[in-house]
Amino acid sequence: MTKTANVTIVLNKPKYPGNVGSAARCAMNMGIDKLVVVGNRDLAMEEMKTMATHVAAGIVDGIRYFDSLNEALAGFHYIVGTTARRGGARGPLVSPREMADTLVDISQKNEVALLFGPEDTGLSNDELRFCHLVVAIPSSRHFKSINLSHSVMILCYEIFIAKGNIQETFTPRLATSAELEGMYDQMKALFLKIGFLNPQNPDYWMMHVRRFLSRTRLLSKEVKVIRGICRQLDWYERNKKT
Amino acid sequence: MTKTANVTIVLNKPKYPGNVGSAARCAMNMGIDKLVVVGNRDLAMEEMKTMATHVAAGIVDGIRYFDSLNEALAGFHYIVGTTARRGGARGPLVSPREMADTLVDISQKNEVALLFGPEDTGLSNDELRFCHLVVAIPSSRHFKSINLSHSVMILCYEIFIAKGNIQETFTPRLATSAELEGMYDQMKALFLKIGFLNPQNPDYWMMHVRRFLSRTRLLSKEVKVIRGICRQLDWYERNKKT
Repeated sequence: MTKTANVTIVLNKPKYPGNVGSAARCAMNMGIDKLVVVGNRDLAMEEMKTMATHVAAGIVDGIRYFDSLNEALAGFHYIVGTTARRGGARGPLVSPREMADTLVDISQKNEVALLFGPEDTGLSNDELRFCHLVVAIPSSRHFKSINLSHSVMILCYEIFIAKGNIQETFTPRLATSAELEGMYDQMKALFLKIGFLNPQNPDYWMMHVRRFLSRTRLLSKEVKVIRGICRQLDWYERNKKT
Repeated sequence: MTKTANVTIVLNKPKYPGNVGSAARCAMNMGIDKLVVVGNRDLAMEEMKTMATHVAAGIVDGIRYFDSLNEALAGFHYIVGTTARRGGARGPLVSPREMADTLVDISQKNEVALLFGPEDTGLSNDELRFCHLVVAIPSSRHFKSINLSHSVMILCYEIFIAKGNIQETFTPRLATSAELEGMYDQMKALFLKIGFLNPQNPDYWMMHVRRFLSRTRLLSKEVKVIRGICRQLDWYERNKKT
C-alpha cells in the first residue's frame, strides 16, 4: 500500500477557496492530510473550511503557503504533475492508475508531491518540468475540463486503493527537487558556455535532458556524481586554452 | 466499454443545488449526460449552472424531476446504489471497480441508474432495496463522508475507464424496476396472506427475498413466470377450503 503519510497535495495558484477546501476534504477521505498552496495567500479561510467540513478543517489550518513553486517543491523527492492537455512538450503521460502503482513503492521512503495547476489554465510547460511523472486523467472528448477538487479526488482515490507490490529489496531514497534543480542550473550554465544550448531559447534542449533524467529517478549521490562531472568539464573548458 | 448513453445519474433528495451542478459536470466529464432528481423541485437553477459550467448547462436544463423514487426508477433495468455505511441490512457490497466491470456488459442493452442519497444521510435501507448492486466507495476510516459530487465522480470515472469483456453471446434485456416492484407487491400480498410474513414487520423477510432476486437479474418474461406462480398459489389458497 501507498504510504499516504508521505504524500502531499500541492495546489499551484488556486483561485477559489472553495476548491481548496474541497480538495482538503477529498485528501482526508483518502487518508492524505498535507496540503501546500503556492502563489496565493489571500484565500478566504471561512470558505475553505465550509467546503472542507469541520472534520478536515485541521488540514486547512495546516496548509503551508509558498510564493514560488521552486521553494514549495524543494523538499520533495518525487513530483507527480497533472495535465488535461496532450502534446509534444508534455512528454509521456500516464494514467491515474499507473501513477498509483508507481507510488506504492516510491512513497515508502520518499516525500511525494501531487501537483495541480490553477483552475483555468492548469500547469504550464514550465511548471511541468519539475515533475518526474505527468498524469492525464481520462475524460470525454466532449468535455475535458475537470474541476480541480475532482481531479484531486481521482488521484487520491487511485492512490488509496492501490495495492501494488512493495519490492522489499530496493526502495531507494531519491534526490530532492532542490538537489535536482541545483544540478539542472549547473548543467544549463555549462551547456550554454559550451554552445550546446541556443542562448535565445536555452530551455528547449534542457527540457529534453530534464525529461529523461526525471524518469531515471536519480539518487542524491548520483546527483553529486553528475555535478562532479559538470564541475570537471567546466574546469577543463576554462583550462583547455593553455 | 460501458455504453454510457444508457447510464443515468439519479440523485435522491439532494439538498444543495451546487452539488447537483457539480455532479452534472462530473457526469459530462465522463461521457454521461442524463440526470434525474427525486424529491426536490426547488433547486436554484443559477447555482446549479454555475457549478456545472456552461458546457454542462444542457444537462442541468435536461434534468428530469420526480416526486417519488418508485416513479423515478420505474423505467430502469439495473439500479446501482451507493452507501458509505456497512451493515447486515445492506447485504453484499462491491467496490466501484467491480461495479464498473459489471456494467460493461449490462449497459449494452439495459438502462442503468446510478442512485445516490442525500448529502447528510445517504440512502436508507428502504431506498437501497431497489438496487441490484450496492457500491461502497473505499475511504479512510478517519473520514468516510465523501461529498456527493465527488462520489458521483468516482463512480463515473470507473465506468468511463472500464474496458471489460462484452459477452457477444448473451446480454439479456432485464426486467424494469416497475415490473420488479409489481412482482414484489404481489409476492408480499401473497406471503402475508399465507402467514409467511409477520404483519407487524412484513418487510423483514421481503428484504431477503428481494436481495437474492435482485442478484438474479430477472428477465421480463421470468417476472411474468413468477407472477403466474403467485397468481396460481393465490387461486389455490382461495379454493383449498372446498
